[in-house]
Amino acid sequence: MSASEVHRGSSTLEPPHTLTATGGRSFGAGRALRPGAKVLPEHARGHNRSLVLQTLFHQGAMSRADLSRETGLTRVTISDLVGELIADGFVAELGVRESSRPGKPAILVDLDRAGHRIVGLDLSGTDTFIGAVLTLDGEIVVRREAPVPASAGDVVATVVELARELVAESHAPVLGIGVGTPGVVDDRGIILTAPNFGWAGFDLESALEGALQLPVLVANDANAAVLAEYTWGGAGDDVLLVKVGRGVGSGLLSGGQPMRGSRFAAGEIGHVTVGTDGGPQCVCGKVGCLEAWLSVPSLTERMDAAPDAAGRESVLRDAGERLGIALAPVVGALDLSEIVLSGPIELLDGPLAAAAVETLRSRTLAQFHDGVRVRMTAQGQDIVLRGAAVMVLSGQLGVS
Amino acid sequence: MSASEVHRGSSTLEPPHTLTATGGRSFGAGRALRPGAKVLPEHARGHNRSLVLQTLFHQGAMSRADLSRETGLTRVTISDLVGELIADGFVAELGVRESSRPGKPAILVDLDRAGHRIVGLDLSGTDTFIGAVLTLDGEIVVRREAPVPASAGDVVATVVELARELVAESHAPVLGIGVGTPGVVDDRGIILTAPNFGWAGFDLESALEGALQLPVLVANDANAAVLAEYTWGGAGDDVLLVKVGRGVGSGLLSGGQPMRGSRFAAGEIGHVTVGTDGGPQCVCGKVGCLEAWLSVPSLTERMDAAPDAAGRESVLRDAGERLGIALAPVVGALDLSEIVLSGPIELLDGPLAAAAVETLRSRTLAQFHDGVRVRMTAQGQDIVLRGAAVMVLSGQLGVS
Repeated sequence: MSASEVHRGSSTLEPPHTLTATGGRSFGAGRALRPGAKVLPEHARGHNRSLVLQTLFHQGAMSRADLSRETGLTRVTISDLVGELIADGFVAELGVRESSRPGKPAILVDLDRAGHRIVGLDLSGTDTFIGAVLTLDGEIVVRREAPVPASAGDVVATVVELARELVAESHAPVLGIGVGTPGVVDDRGIILTAPNFGWAGFDLESALEGALQLPVLVANDANAAVLAEYTWGGAGDDVLLVKVGRGVGSGLLSGGQPMRGSRFAAGEIGHVTVGTDGGPQCVCGKVGCLEAWLSVPSLTERMDAAPDAAGRESVLRDAGERLGIALAPVVGALDLSEIVLSGPIELLDGPLAAAAVETLRSRTLAQFHDGVRVRMTAQGQDIVLRGAAVMVLSGQLGVS
Repeated sequence: MSASEVHRGSSTLEPPHTLTATGGRSFGAGRALRPGAKVLPEHARGHNRSLVLQTLFHQGAMSRADLSRETGLTRVTISDLVGELIADGFVAELGVRESSRPGKPAILVDLDRAGHRIVGLDLSGTDTFIGAVLTLDGEIVVRREAPVPASAGDVVATVVELARELVAESHAPVLGIGVGTPGVVDDRGIILTAPNFGWAGFDLESALEGALQLPVLVANDANAAVLAEYTWGGAGDDVLLVKVGRGVGSGLLSGGQPMRGSRFAAGEIGHVTVGTDGGPQCVCGKVGCLEAWLSVPSLTERMDAAPDAAGRESVLRDAGERLGIALAPVVGALDLSEIVLSGPIELLDGPLAAAAVETLRSRTLAQFHDGVRVRMTAQGQDIVLRGAAVMVLSGQLGVS
């Protein structure tokens, strides 16, 4: 990485002073320096700036003296950085804290949570693209949607129009636009493959940045979702999020870091064969893929064919068992503590999740993995939108 | 991390100036800053020092001007750092390079590869502990071994004696002692569990440091092995090493970083159930564990019972197929590019490896994972010793 590559993207804001190995894309300061990266004084400054933002993001308003104590940075450095962040519009003074101690009352500073907005887009729906304006806390303040166009050639135009509408309604400077999309996405926002939209090697990020003149960050929808679960859903550092919809995908964090894989295809578990006793026919041509057991269309079809309630429960339990069979080696290899499910709650929560966790426990070594949890996300259908917002927070402010 | 925690361990050398999140344990500068870590000027200096060492480690002798060009650091900074590294005995001047260009001939500097040695220990053998003195390039210059003591209570004394013997024969200052051991080991070198030795919550690292008065780094044997494969065996950034012996374990790198897991048990795949059609009885009490298919005792027993050559090949192919079944979800979830096998070559190479790769390809999505390779390590029985040396290089010099 050369110093000039640190700030990639066509930001119209002050370039973010984050210390990242991959321009604005890094998630978490822990990835800040890749092997061979240089540490130059301006990097240290950028890192410290992110540290201040990160501290305020997670802990809320505090005085400059508190910030100095929390970060270990000197009072002078803190004053300097806070001044710069106020000038850039990312931090605001909130007023004075009453103090029982004598002396000058402390002025509280905080992330200017109203000063900027984020636009998030979720392209994973079968019929509808959804979008939102979010606060820096991930709260959704405006929602809009657009039907998925019949022709793949119209997808970009539809996305641009949806994004423009949201930017117009944001009533504050937009920090950036995060996009969660089906498909395999590389670390520069290029869609390597997304069969639904006919994309292969398509630079969606540049296309949207060119049209919208704002920083854009694009990631796979399940990879976006796991970031939302990590930042706002209480997930731990070693978590797999399984996203069940028309297909089945997953997003994975290990040690708090997103796993991307050797060809950016980490998480593509939908077409892994499960078990050694056959199974339903999959759309891909194989038999017994996880997706053939677990996708919404496949589950719905088998539920509809079940003769009674017991039959329907059995369909759900079978699918949960297959999920457990597929994930046991992943839990073993990665020592995951948690599996989070995202998708239709009426299908996933209950017998399906219960069978998955039973199966996981019985197929791994109790000594290590008996504590593994399987639970629904509490973020419902907003999870990709909120994950897209985390991508922007991380990429533009170094906050996650 | 407080600044005072940066240099953990009882090093008798100059404290290493590496910028690491976990004292001397970090692998790869990419892990250098954990979220929330501060970048202070002395950190930048330490990181730059590691960068110089890393550049020389991988590229060999060069002039200070070359180093400046390779690292992007100024000539003044390079001169200063090289001077310090020469004084510390880690870098040496090698003489003058002939140059066709006019002007002062360039003095070449390199890692002082003869100036220090590393001691590596491998405790994973059933009957024998093996140890070696290694150069900074991972070349083994002295080998010693000791029988595994009959009583678990004598293990530490045996290891200390073996290490002392090797230190005495190293004929150069010992940078540190790396130990690969069976069991689950946390990031401070505490053995959380190692049933063979009766250890649970045992601080092997401190015990050895106390006795040997040298920096000691302890890790699980398969986790050590994958580091050797990464640094010296040509493995890529996303690789799983499967170590087959009395048991079956694995070590995993994703994006070039070791995966540790939520309870330091990443890689414990031996007791994951494989398939849905039963299988051999496992020592753990379950049926069809990967270890019951693949461990050396289990393979040997079934080979011995086979009636002829075709029967023995079938045993090997079955085991390879089970390995493929177990690893397909891991390859899918992590988008691994490579599986490396370590263990008896006469069992693992050939029909077993071939069946494993065929199975992996047929049970994952061809589009993403058809290129996955399965191969034997070329490092033979030295792999854990050499991985233990990588731990020391990484922990003490920031080199990997």
